[in-house]
Amino acid sequence: MADTLLRAATRDDAPAIVAITRELIADGGVYPHTAEMTDEELVAYWFQPKAHVVTAELGGQVAGVYLMKPQWMGRGAHVATASYAVANAVRGHGVGEALGRHSIAEARRLGFRAMQFNLVVETNTAAVKLWQKLGFRILATLPGVFRHDVHGYVGAHVMFLEL
Amino acid sequence: MADTLLRAATRDDAPAIVAITRELIADGGVYPHTAEMTDEELVAYWFQPKAHVVTAELGGQVAGVYLMKPQWMGRGAHVATASYAVANAVRGHGVGEALGRHSIAEARRLGFRAMQFNLVVETNTAAVKLWQKLGFRILATLPGVFRHDVHGYVGAHVMFLEL
Repeated sequence: MADTLLRAATRDDAPAIVAITRELIADGGVYPHTAEMTDEELVAYWFQPKAHVVTAELGGQVAGVYLMKPQWMGRGAHVATASYAVANAVRGHGVGEALGRHSIAEARRLGFRAMQFNLVVETNTAAVKLWQKLGFRILATLPGVFRHDVHGYVGAHVMFLEL
Repeated sequence: MADTLLRAATRDDAPAIVAITRELIADGGVYPHTAEMTDEELVAYWFQPKAHVVTAELGGQVAGVYLMKPQWMGRGAHVATASYAVANAVRGHGVGEALGRHSIAEARRLGFRAMQFNLVVETNTAAVKLWQKLGFRILATLPGVFRHDVHGYVGAHVMFLEL
């Protein structure tokens, strides 16, 4: 989107990032995080060591965020993994896609050879479609690994993109 | 094996566990860890938060170790993941299989619904065969995710067992 600004996150963004994360936790079908997690734990999740954290601003408000980091240490550190979150209020405005495209470009720029998502919940079809649109393919569906609020134990996809 | 003793690890086992891990690091085709990691980092890896750590003793010596922990937090915490290491000197004596069988029984006892391995290097055929013997199946092979000392970038399997 023309008016979406992507920039490095700072600690000043933490309250907005926590608020967006709590929306996804309340959804119950996107993130493994549960409501018992404290704000401090959520901030520690997003600003974890080695994470590259980027926010999307829409109309001057933080509307989404991603973190990207090495999937493994050492001999697996050339593979990136990432998490994304978009505020409910801006769904359907392309913020997720803007974050996705930015993260792929950043992964290339940083020298990663591939990106891997470990837990794309199969019932989260909007996410699955978006990642497929951006070139990711489903390598496996892990059976029953996600305890969904509505659907019970559902599968989650491992999705992969060579850069 | 009749003379393999499996028991909860203690911090007194740390030097032996570090020595075994360094053998696997030197192999260059098993673990993502690299030789630059300090002993303190290796101890922190094995005795990480939420890890259930078990050693195998053979003739009174620590000959192997595994750690098992939840694969994800919250909505994915019913899936276990694990790492295993066996000393070079006792290869072919069934220590790996004893550790594997013990870890599966422990995962069941602790209430996990499945076990998932995230990075079984495809050229490590002894490990792949052992896990298949114990019931694991290959759900995906992640292409080129492991930088192998001899073979360059090789794939690694995601292996899965429903409990």
